[in-house]
Amino acid sequence: MQRYFVPEDHFTEHHVVITGDDARHIQKVMRMKPSDSLICANNKGKAYLCAVESIDGGQVCAVIKQKITGNSELPIQVTIAQGIPKADKFDTIIQKGTECGASLFIPFQAQRSIALWKKNKKDKKRLRLEKISKEAAEQSHRLYVPKLSEPMDLDQLIAYSTSCDYKMVAFEETAKSGAQAGFPTLLKKMNKGDRLLAVIGPEGGLSVDEAKKLEDHGFVLCGLGPRILRTETTAIYLLSAISYHFELLNCEVDD
Amino acid sequence: MQRYFVPEDHFTEHHVVITGDDARHIQKVMRMKPSDSLICANNKGKAYLCAVESIDGGQVCAVIKQKITGNSELPIQVTIAQGIPKADKFDTIIQKGTECGASLFIPFQAQRSIALWKKNKKDKKRLRLEKISKEAAEQSHRLYVPKLSEPMDLDQLIAYSTSCDYKMVAFEETAKSGAQAGFPTLLKKMNKGDRLLAVIGPEGGLSVDEAKKLEDHGFVLCGLGPRILRTETTAIYLLSAISYHFELLNCEVDD
Repeated sequence: MQRYFVPEDHFTEHHVVITGDDARHIQKVMRMKPSDSLICANNKGKAYLCAVESIDGGQVCAVIKQKITGNSELPIQVTIAQGIPKADKFDTIIQKGTECGASLFIPFQAQRSIALWKKNKKDKKRLRLEKISKEAAEQSHRLYVPKLSEPMDLDQLIAYSTSCDYKMVAFEETAKSGAQAGFPTLLKKMNKGDRLLAVIGPEGGLSVDEAKKLEDHGFVLCGLGPRILRTETTAIYLLSAISYHFELLNCEVDD
Repeated sequence: MQRYFVPEDHFTEHHVVITGDDARHIQKVMRMKPSDSLICANNKGKAYLCAVESIDGGQVCAVIKQKITGNSELPIQVTIAQGIPKADKFDTIIQKGTECGASLFIPFQAQRSIALWKKNKKDKKRLRLEKISKEAAEQSHRLYVPKLSEPMDLDQLIAYSTSCDYKMVAFEETAKSGAQAGFPTLLKKMNKGDRLLAVIGPEGGLSVDEAKKLEDHGFVLCGLGPRILRTETTAIYLLSAISYHFELLNCEVDD
């Protein structure tokens, strides 16, 4: 069933008012009529089964039928600090990373990042990425739309990392050396609600200097298997493995 | 280091001859000169560190320096039977699925597959997909290029499945019902070299009839977490989880 994130102040006790692009989507794409069902989520952890009540130009009013139970969020909070990649790869990372449960994305200006987020294009880029993230969160039945931070350089990322419970770096050289225990060892230590910061290099990978500096600041260098993953595949691998570990493998996390 | 798959009959005891697109790539894109290093793999499980010896028009001759040890292949053989998706999503699935270790891809003509592989375009499509697969296998340091079968319908897929040790279906409805133990339970049963066939629906998912028929033929219906994954994300999730299970989590598989 179609889902929409609706700002919390558009909810009243029994109704939801949907405006803007989503109202247009309901009318023009979904061609909904009064009494048709949809799900409205408030991006604060709650979602409701609703029925269209009235459609009036740019505004759709829906009546709340019932609260939807069940939690589709990962038990740990994962921040992906992604070395800024070329072209539209960040779009893919945001879309797939949202589907796979990330909480926050940090564009990380790594030494080998070729693309820069130029000031004059930054706002437009942010709007597009936020739209991709919202749509992916709706499609995958998330309860929250992941956040997108301002771009950070290495020092900013290290300063930010002090607020996280666990921190890791997906590092190809560790993968090559065959040391694969770091990542599962880290996950086994984590409890429900803990925050993990995972740093992923851009196309050329992280430099040895960057990896060393992160390691000096308490980041665990982790290999992610013996195959070399493209930068845009790494976040999906990481989040899928986290989902498998916590949500499927019955590795119960302590409350 | 740049890797190329070279047909086995281009290898002699001490030399490799590279022709065609790869020879052009070495000259025009990599701009290699004599004595530059590269890796040549024979798609039979062996890879060698080589050095360019001579470049002569459409042909590059390289001398074999040493055999490369280490295995980058998943310990189990995974076949992805992918419900044929729309547009260029199969390209993504082949590329990322190759990076993540798949052995074989079967385009599966599911009830809800909108796209058909028309006869007149099938050969061109196959050539493109094989090229994507070869390049992804080179980039990710695989020892084998995954194979691509002819498209199959449900009955053909069921007939094929008798040759596999384990078979599963990624089924959204199982995910929705909260039953997540099926997939890890299956993996825990598997031993090194076993063959797993995993069926993934197209955009609209598998129909209940298709899932039922597969289940009747011994396929295990498996949920892959509480979030609804796009069809092109599902294979990557599945293969990443398999890699995590066998390659990282130290779930040693019996020889």
